[in-house]
Amino acid sequence: MSNPRITLVNPNSLARVTEAIDRAVEPFRRLPLEFRCLTSTGGPAGIQTQAEADASIAPMASLIQQEAATTDAFIVACFSDPGLHGLRDLIRVPMLGIGECSVLTAMSMATRIGAIAIASAAVPRHLRYFRAIGVADRICGELALDMKVSELADAELAFQRMAAVGTALRDTHGADVLIMGCAGMADLRDRLQETCRLPVVEPTQAAVAMAAGRVFGRF
Amino acid sequence: MSNPRITLVNPNSLARVTEAIDRAVEPFRRLPLEFRCLTSTGGPAGIQTQAEADASIAPMASLIQQEAATTDAFIVACFSDPGLHGLRDLIRVPMLGIGECSVLTAMSMATRIGAIAIASAAVPRHLRYFRAIGVADRICGELALDMKVSELADAELAFQRMAAVGTALRDTHGADVLIMGCAGMADLRDRLQETCRLPVVEPTQAAVAMAAGRVFGRF
Amino acid sequence: MSNPRITLVNPNSLARVTEAIDRAVEPFRRLPLEFRCLTSTGGPAGIQTQAEADASIAPMASLIQQEAATTDAFIVACFSDPGLHGLRDLIRVPMLGIGECSVLTAMSMATRIGAIAIASAAVPRHLRYFRAIGVADRICGELALDMKVSELADAELAFQRMAAVGTALRDTHGADVLIMGCAGMADLRDRLQETCRLPVVEPTQAAVAMAAGRVFGRF
Amino acid sequence: MSNPRITLVNPNSLARVTEAIDRAVEPFRRLPLEFRCLTSTGGPAGIQTQAEADASIAPMASLIQQEAATTDAFIVACFSDPGLHGLRDLIRVPMLGIGECSVLTAMSMATRIGAIAIASAAVPRHLRYFRAIGVADRICGELALDMKVSELADAELAFQRMAAVGTALRDTHGADVLIMGCAGMADLRDRLQETCRLPVVEPTQAAVAMAAGRVFGRF
Amino acid sequence: MSNPRITLVNPNSLARVTEAIDRAVEPFRRLPLEFRCLTSTGGPAGIQTQAEADASIAPMASLIQQEAATTDAFIVACFSDPGLHGLRDLIRVPMLGIGECSVLTAMSMATRIGAIAIASAAVPRHLRYFRAIGVADRICGELALDMKVSELADAELAFQRMAAVGTALRDTHGADVLIMGCAGMADLRDRLQETCRLPVVEPTQAAVAMAAGRVFGRF
Amino acid sequence: MSNPRITLVNPNSLARVTEAIDRAVEPFRRLPLEFRCLTSTGGPAGIQTQAEADASIAPMASLIQQEAATTDAFIVACFSDPGLHGLRDLIRVPMLGIGECSVLTAMSMATRIGAIAIASAAVPRHLRYFRAIGVADRICGELALDMKVSELADAELAFQRMAAVGTALRDTHGADVLIMGCAGMADLRDRLQETCRLPVVEPTQAAVAMAAGRVFGRF
Repeated sequence: MSNPRITLVNPNSLARVTEAIDRAVEPFRRLPLEFRCLTSTGGPAGIQTQAEADASIAPMASLIQQEAATTDAFIVACFSDPGLHGLRDLIRVPMLGIGECSVLTAMSMATRIGAIAIASAAVPRHLRYFRAIGVADRICGELALDMKVSELADAELAFQRMAAVGTALRDTHGADVLIMGCAGMADLRDRLQETCRLPVVEPTQAAVAMAAGRVFGRF
Repeated sequence: MSNPRITLVNPNSLARVTEAIDRAVEPFRRLPLEFRCLTSTGGPAGIQTQAEADASIAPMASLIQQEAATTDAFIVACFSDPGLHGLRDLIRVPMLGIGECSVLTAMSMATRIGAIAIASAAVPRHLRYFRAIGVADRICGELALDMKVSELADAELAFQRMAAVGTALRDTHGADVLIMGCAGMADLRDRLQETCRLPVVEPTQAAVAMAAGRVFGRF
Repeated sequence: MSNPRITLVNPNSLARVTEAIDRAVEPFRRLPLEFRCLTSTGGPAGIQTQAEADASIAPMASLIQQEAATTDAFIVACFSDPGLHGLRDLIRVPMLGIGECSVLTAMSMATRIGAIAIASAAVPRHLRYFRAIGVADRICGELALDMKVSELADAELAFQRMAAVGTALRDTHGADVLIMGCAGMADLRDRLQETCRLPVVEPTQAAVAMAAGRVFGRF
Repeated sequence: MSNPRITLVNPNSLARVTEAIDRAVEPFRRLPLEFRCLTSTGGPAGIQTQAEADASIAPMASLIQQEAATTDAFIVACFSDPGLHGLRDLIRVPMLGIGECSVLTAMSMATRIGAIAIASAAVPRHLRYFRAIGVADRICGELALDMKVSELADAELAFQRMAAVGTALRDTHGADVLIMGCAGMADLRDRLQETCRLPVVEPTQAAVAMAAGRVFGRF
Repeated sequence: MSNPRITLVNPNSLARVTEAIDRAVEPFRRLPLEFRCLTSTGGPAGIQTQAEADASIAPMASLIQQEAATTDAFIVACFSDPGLHGLRDLIRVPMLGIGECSVLTAMSMATRIGAIAIASAAVPRHLRYFRAIGVADRICGELALDMKVSELADAELAFQRMAAVGTALRDTHGADVLIMGCAGMADLRDRLQETCRLPVVEPTQAAVAMAAGRVFGRF
Repeated sequence: MSNPRITLVNPNSLARVTEAIDRAVEPFRRLPLEFRCLTSTGGPAGIQTQAEADASIAPMASLIQQEAATTDAFIVACFSDPGLHGLRDLIRVPMLGIGECSVLTAMSMATRIGAIAIASAAVPRHLRYFRAIGVADRICGELALDMKVSELADAELAFQRMAAVGTALRDTHGADVLIMGCAGMADLRDRLQETCRLPVVEPTQAAVAMAAGRVFGRF
C-alpha cells in the first residue's frame, strides 16, 4: 500500500513561495507520507489584501477539485486560509488551513499568542478571521513587518524586522508564544525562536502536523 | 446635476432574484436617487453554501469594478455579503452588504435579533460572519426554513414556513426583532411582521437605507 | 402630502449645541424631509458624567412625548444616548440615538473603531454602553480630549486636540475609522478626516442617515 | 461611637415594597449596624419597563443626596440598579445596587446563574445590563414569571410560578444557582431554595452583605 | 537512533482505563514512534468532580517528572486536563491534554462543537475550562450521559446513551462536530460517528495526533 | 450561642504570610465573628507558578476537611484560589477565594480593574482564571512587580514598585480601581490608595467581607 498523500496548495502564483513551503515540510519527511506542493498558477502574485485573498479562491478551488481523488488531506498554504470553509463543504478528505492550524497549535503551547503579519493591511483581515473562528481572545497582539512580500527576499532584513516585532509582542503585549503570519518563512523559525526567547509556530508546519495526525488517526 | 446612483448587485445569476431585489427598493424611489439592480451573470445559480458564496466573488468583483466610475454607492445583495470587505479595499465609494446592514439596523431597533435562514447549510456560515463582524452576541438564535431557493417560488409555502420559524425565534429564543436572511423576499415583510408581531428587517431595504444616508451625508 | 418630519432633541439645555446639531443636518436638507431640532430646556447644561446623562432623561422624555404625535422619527442627540432604550418602549416611531448610530455606521465602514471622547469621565460610561449594546469588540480604543465642553468653543484648540487624539487612535490602537464622541462638532469632521487620513463618523449625521432610511423604508 | 448606617432606597413609590425590603434585612440586624429603608415617594409605582427605571432616577437621586451626609453606605433596592453608576460619581460612600450584588454574589457560589424576572419586558433590559457590567457569560438563562407586580401580592401564586421557572432554569438551562430578579421577595427565598434544590440569592440580602463588608472593611 | 517516545498518563488509578487509552493509540502505531501508557497509581479511582481532578495532579506530576528525561512528549489523558498548565511550566518537552486537543481539533473540522460529558457534575467544570482556554464560543452545547464511569463497562448501554446525547446535540444545539468528553471510549467512535452522522473527535487520538506533529516538527 | 467562625487558610507553608493575613482581618474584628487563620504546613513555600498553585491543593484540602465540622465559612487565602471550585463540591459551608472575591468586589466599585501581580509568571495563570470565571472583560490590565515573594519583606521597596505599577495601570490602561494580586500585603493598602489616587481592593479583606455577609445572611 502506498503512503498517504498530503497536498499543500499555495494559492498565490509565486513558485518561489511554493518552494519555501516545500522546504517547511522537511522535518516531516521521516513519516510514511507523500507530500506534494502545488502552485495555484491562476492565483494572484501575492496575497496581502482581502481582495487578493478572495481572488485566489476560485483558481485554487479548481486545482483542489482536480487533485481531490488522489489526495488524503489538503493544506491551504496561505495564512488567511482563503476559501477554507467552503472547500470543507466540497471535499471529503481533511482540509486544513495554515492560519487556523497555527493558532490552534499555539493555543496548546502557551496562553497569549502574538501574531507577526507581513503587511499592516492584513491585520484587520486577520482580526476578522480570528473572531470568525472564535480565537480572538487568545491573540494578545498582532504587529506588521510593513515590508513588501518582495522585500522579504532579503532574508536578513526580514529577519531583523521580524525579531524586532516579535520582541515587541513579547515585551509590550505579553506574548508567550509567537505565530508567523505568512507561508514560506520556515527557514527563519529557529533563529527567531532563539532571538525572541519564545516558542515560534511556523504555520505550514503546524498544518502539516495536524494533517498528518488526521490522516493516520482517520478522523 | 443628476441624482446620485446606488447600484445593487445580485451576486447570483438568477434574474428573478434581481427582479425581487428591484421591488424591494420601491419605498425609496421617492428619494432623489437613481437605483440600478444588476445581475452578476457569471455568478452561481443561487448561494447556499460557503463554496457558492466564495465562487460568486470573482465575477461580481469584475462587474463592480466596471461600474465603479459611474456609481455613488454599491450594495452587495446577498445575505452572506460575499467579497464585501475585499471590495471595500478596492472601491472608493460606500460599499455595503445586505447581511451586515440588516444586523446593524436590527441592532438599532431591539435587543435580541432572531435570524431566519433559508437553508440549514447557511447557519454555520452566518455564525462565522456574525462573529467576524463582532455582532454574534446580539443574535439570540438563527433557524432555517429548510426549503430550497427554488421552492421559495411558492410564496405561500415560503411564508408559512417563515412565519413558523419567526414565531419560534420569538417564543423560544426571545427574539424581539427578526431579520430575513436572504435577498428577494421583501414582498413578504409586512405580512411576516403582522403574523409574528415583531419588527422585521428586510436586508435589501436596510442596505438601501444606509447607502442613501451615506450618499447624502457624504461619509 | 407633507414631508415626513424627523425631530432631533438635544438633551442638554445649551441652545448653542442645538444650533450646531442643526448645522450637522445640512447635507440631508436635499431630501424630502422636514427636520426640527429642539432643546430640552429642563436638561443639564452639558452632559459629561453618568449622573448628568441620567438627569437629562426625565425632561427630554416629556418633550419627546409632547412631540410624538407630529413626528415620524426621533433622534436623541447626545453621544451617551440617554434614555434611548426606555423611549423606544414608549414611542411607536423610530427612536435613534447618535451614539448607537455612529458605532453601527462605523461598523459598516471599517474593522477597528477609534472613539474620541470629550472628557475622560465619559470613557467608562461609554465602555459600559458599548458592552450593553454588544459592540465593544469593535472599539479598538477610546481617548479623551480632556477639554471642558466650554473650551470647545475655541474651535481651533479643540480641533488640534482632536487631531492629536485621532492620530494616536490610528497609530497606537490601530483604528481604521474614527467616531466623534459628542454632538455638535460636525463642522470639524471634514478637516479631521483629512488630517487623520481616516474616515470620520459624525454621530448626528450617522443618526439622521439611519432615521431617514427608516422613515422612507417604513421599518 | 454610634453604629454605621446603611440606607436602602426603594426607587418605586410603593411603601409595601419598602416594607418587604425592610424584612429582607432581618438576618443582618445582629450586626453592629443601623439600617434605614426609605421610599422614593416621587418614583413610579413599580418598575417594569426601562422607561420606568429611567424615570425613577431623578427623585431617588434627590433623596440620596439629602441623606448622604448621614449615611455610611447606600443600596439602590431595585434589581435594575437605576442610576447606580451615576450616583457612584456623586456620592463618596459605598453605593451598591441589588442587581449587581446579586449577580456578583451568585458568581461566588456556582458557575451557571439562572435569573428569575417578574415580567418579560424586563428581560432585554437585564440582558443589556448584564452585558454592560461584563457578567453576561455567567447568566445561563433568564425566564419571567409574567405576572404583574400587583399579582405578586398573592404570595402562593407567585411562589408556584417562581418555583416552576426556577426548576426550568435548572433543568433546561443548566442553572446551578438562582437569583431572584426583584426586590421584596425575601420571604420566599428559603422555600424556593428547598423546592428547586439550588442555592437562591435574594438580591437585597446580597447587597446588604456586600455593603456591610464595605463599611467594616473601610473600602 | 531510536524512535521518539510519547508517554500518555492516565491520571486516575484504573488500569482498565489505561488499557482503553492504549487501544485508542492503535491507528498511530504505523508511525516511527514509541508509545507508553502509564497509570498514575496514586490518583483517584475515576475523575468526575473538580475535587477529584485536583486530587489527581500531585501523584501524576511526580510520575511525569520521573519520566521526563526519557520522553519526547507527554499526554495528560483525562478530558479535564488536570495539572496541564502547571506541568507545562515544569517540563521542557511538549505537554498536551486530551481535552484541549480534542477541542482544538474539532475547531479545525466544523463550526459548532457539541461535547458529550459522562456526568452532569463535569459540565460546569468543563465550561470553566473552555472559558479559561478561550474556546467557549465554539461549544454549542454540552450534554451528559449521566452514567457512572463504572456503568460505562456496559458498552452497549453507554453507546446508546451517547448516541442519544449526540443526536440531541446535533438536532437541538446545532452541533456539526462532536467531541467525546472522556478518555477510554475510542472503541465507540466509529459507530457513534455513523449513528449521529457527524464527525466525532476521540480526545486521546486528537492528542496523539498533535503530539506526533510536535515531535516530528520539533516545535 | 457562640459567634460564627470564619477560617482562613494560607495554602503556602510560610507562617509569616499567615500572620500578614491575620493582620488583614483586623477591621472586621468588631463583628460578632471568630476568625481563625491557618497555615497549610504541607503546602509549597510560596505560590508563584501554576505548578505551585496546583501542588498546594492536596494538603490544603486535607486541612479544610479536618476543620469543616467546626467552621461556618472558609477562605482560601491565595490570589490564585487554588482548589476553590473543587472544595465547593466537597464542603457545605460557604467557600470563598480571595482572588475571586477581590475581582467581584472591585466590579461593584468601578468599571475598569487593574490587577497588580507579584510575578510575571502569575499573569497568564490569572488571565486563564479571569476568563474561567467570566470576568476578563472587566480587567483592563495586569502588571507585575517582578519581585520575589522574599523581596517583599522589604516593605518600602515593595511599596514603591507597587505604586509605580498601580500608576501605570491608571494612566496607561485606564484603571479606575486596583486589586492587589497577592495575600499578605494589607498593610500597604491605604498608602497605595493615596499614592495612586484610586480605590484599592485588598483581596483578603474582600473575601472576609463577602464571607461575613454569607454567614449572617445564611446564604
